[in-house]
Amino acid sequence: MPTTAAVQPDPPDLLRRLQSLCRGRELGALAARLAGLADLVAPDVARFEKTVPSLRPEASAVERGAQHLVDLGGKRLRPICVALAARLGTGFDERALQLAVAVEMVHAATLLHDDVVDVGDTRRGAPAARMIFGNAVSIFAGDWLLIDALKRVRKAEVDGVLERLLDVIEEMILAESLQLERRGRLDTTQAQWFDIVDGKTAALFRWAMFAGGKAGGASDAECEVLETYGRHLGVAFQAIDDLLDLAGNPDETGKALFTDLREGKLTYPLIVSLGREPALEPLLRDIIGADESTPEQHRQHQRVLAILDATGSLDECRKLALDHAARAKDALAGMPPSRAKDALLTVADATVHRPS
Amino acid sequence: MPTTAAVQPDPPDLLRRLQSLCRGRELGALAARLAGLADLVAPDVARFEKTVPSLRPEASAVERGAQHLVDLGGKRLRPICVALAARLGTGFDERALQLAVAVEMVHAATLLHDDVVDVGDTRRGAPAARMIFGNAVSIFAGDWLLIDALKRVRKAEVDGVLERLLDVIEEMILAESLQLERRGRLDTTQAQWFDIVDGKTAALFRWAMFAGGKAGGASDAECEVLETYGRHLGVAFQAIDDLLDLAGNPDETGKALFTDLREGKLTYPLIVSLGREPALEPLLRDIIGADESTPEQHRQHQRVLAILDATGSLDECRKLALDHAARAKDALAGMPPSRAKDALLTVADATVHRPS
Repeated sequence: MPTTAAVQPDPPDLLRRLQSLCRGRELGALAARLAGLADLVAPDVARFEKTVPSLRPEASAVERGAQHLVDLGGKRLRPICVALAARLGTGFDERALQLAVAVEMVHAATLLHDDVVDVGDTRRGAPAARMIFGNAVSIFAGDWLLIDALKRVRKAEVDGVLERLLDVIEEMILAESLQLERRGRLDTTQAQWFDIVDGKTAALFRWAMFAGGKAGGASDAECEVLETYGRHLGVAFQAIDDLLDLAGNPDETGKALFTDLREGKLTYPLIVSLGREPALEPLLRDIIGADESTPEQHRQHQRVLAILDATGSLDECRKLALDHAARAKDALAGMPPSRAKDALLTVADATVHRPS
Repeated sequence: MPTTAAVQPDPPDLLRRLQSLCRGRELGALAARLAGLADLVAPDVARFEKTVPSLRPEASAVERGAQHLVDLGGKRLRPICVALAARLGTGFDERALQLAVAVEMVHAATLLHDDVVDVGDTRRGAPAARMIFGNAVSIFAGDWLLIDALKRVRKAEVDGVLERLLDVIEEMILAESLQLERRGRLDTTQAQWFDIVDGKTAALFRWAMFAGGKAGGASDAECEVLETYGRHLGVAFQAIDDLLDLAGNPDETGKALFTDLREGKLTYPLIVSLGREPALEPLLRDIIGADESTPEQHRQHQRVLAILDATGSLDECRKLALDHAARAKDALAGMPPSRAKDALLTVADATVHRPS
């Protein structure tokens, strides 16, 4: 792929995005740390945005479908993990940059296939690729991004990293399969939630840290530490995603409330609450598969939120996120002080406080 | 994946399948050559069938969806290419076997995604995976098979083969994209047909020959010859596929007549005929997207077939297949005589005369 500067947000945009992570909460200390983080990663993210695939003049429908999603941006949290893990060692060189692009392409590929599977209409506050280009293009666009990612990783020739990525993608697919099998099942357990989240979310964060570490020359023992960070960051990230689906601000998240539940996905607060208040069950059955926009649905949401509140389930979910963010940070405890380490600690905190 | 003997057809089944390739046509000479081919490849195919992924006891929905398709068998022509290309050199060893499994898994992955994209109901004479397991499982099952294939190729560690497979899969996806963009367009040209077929069909045959050759220790120059064979075999194969879609026997092909056209795909005989008889155009428009089973559709098919016959377009398509089979065989002219070479010459002839 040619690498043009077509998609290049300037650093202030990144800063704004990072600072929005803690808007309204603990703004003082965390905002200052975020400014430091932004200083460090802004050039890395700018290089990343320049390297993301951009369109050939004669681009195919599939490439345009892929580009549509990639251009919508997103938090770029996984590439930031690669960059910071590499910066713990020898730095964010060209090989690490390619791994950072690859991790975002794998993530984008899963979003394209997920939107087809979930019949999702919007993504990142814009129409999903399938609404503009159709399901067929979205399926092949996901395939194409996956192959683009694997080609980059192979070319980077960082020892063990391609092998690990293939394993991680397999884990992701099998977790998606488990999620499909649990769709609409109100008896989903916390253990099953963890199995799904470990595969569909945490595995790729784990790989991002592993790949960045390897590119930066980390030893196997150091890489294990970085993977532990990545795994816990991923669980924290998903717990907040679950929370935002029920109680976030749709203007910030870019998606309607209760989308996961309508798609039959049992999020963590719902699983906790179902164990504490059986009256929740019929309410949830009413929402699964429903049309979001009716006033009756809105009233159902309010009833569910009241029960989640009364049973302390939203708090429990935030506690889970805080706990895993703390475990991510603990994993790095033995590492010598550095700007990259500080930045990773800030990323863990910011993940829990993000509004989108 | 564990490799159990769950899916293991015995060699006579293979022989039967191969001999059915020439049933009723040139039966004498070709049938005898096919018996020789079967003797040579039967043990290879038996090893292949034992190595194909088979289910873990706790297999996920996605694995079951993938297995459903793989168990339906098929011609195993791509793995046979890998085996014979390897036998031209040092033989069909464990590494070549893994490459043979991989090429069939990539092929199966594309079928799973194609059935979702084309809303296909049947495949190999049985319900498509999407009809049993749903679109969602079929999408992830295709992803899983693709990753399974790439893992096998990586583990085989045959120089240059993984890199080439990633390039070939990208070619396949971009050709699928082009096919989507041309869907239902009656002004599709022969040049566009070749662009699509080179990518969606010939590329993987090319890789099968390249991979088998590399595993057997072929030089770069020898691999180039093998790829030329693979490319022409692929074009011949697709030309016959196009013919069978219009004038095959559904009991043998396992799919209804005119399926490609209903899905908006302009096959070679139709492109040729449109250039010779403008009256064909409204008839084709009537069939695209139509329900196959009405008597009126049956009458439309008969009218189209009469025009294809009158314009010599079916003959032209068979001529194209014969021409490319000849070019495939010519490519091998400089190779020393061997059983594997004979077998590849037979495969090229059998491809043109196959009834399914």
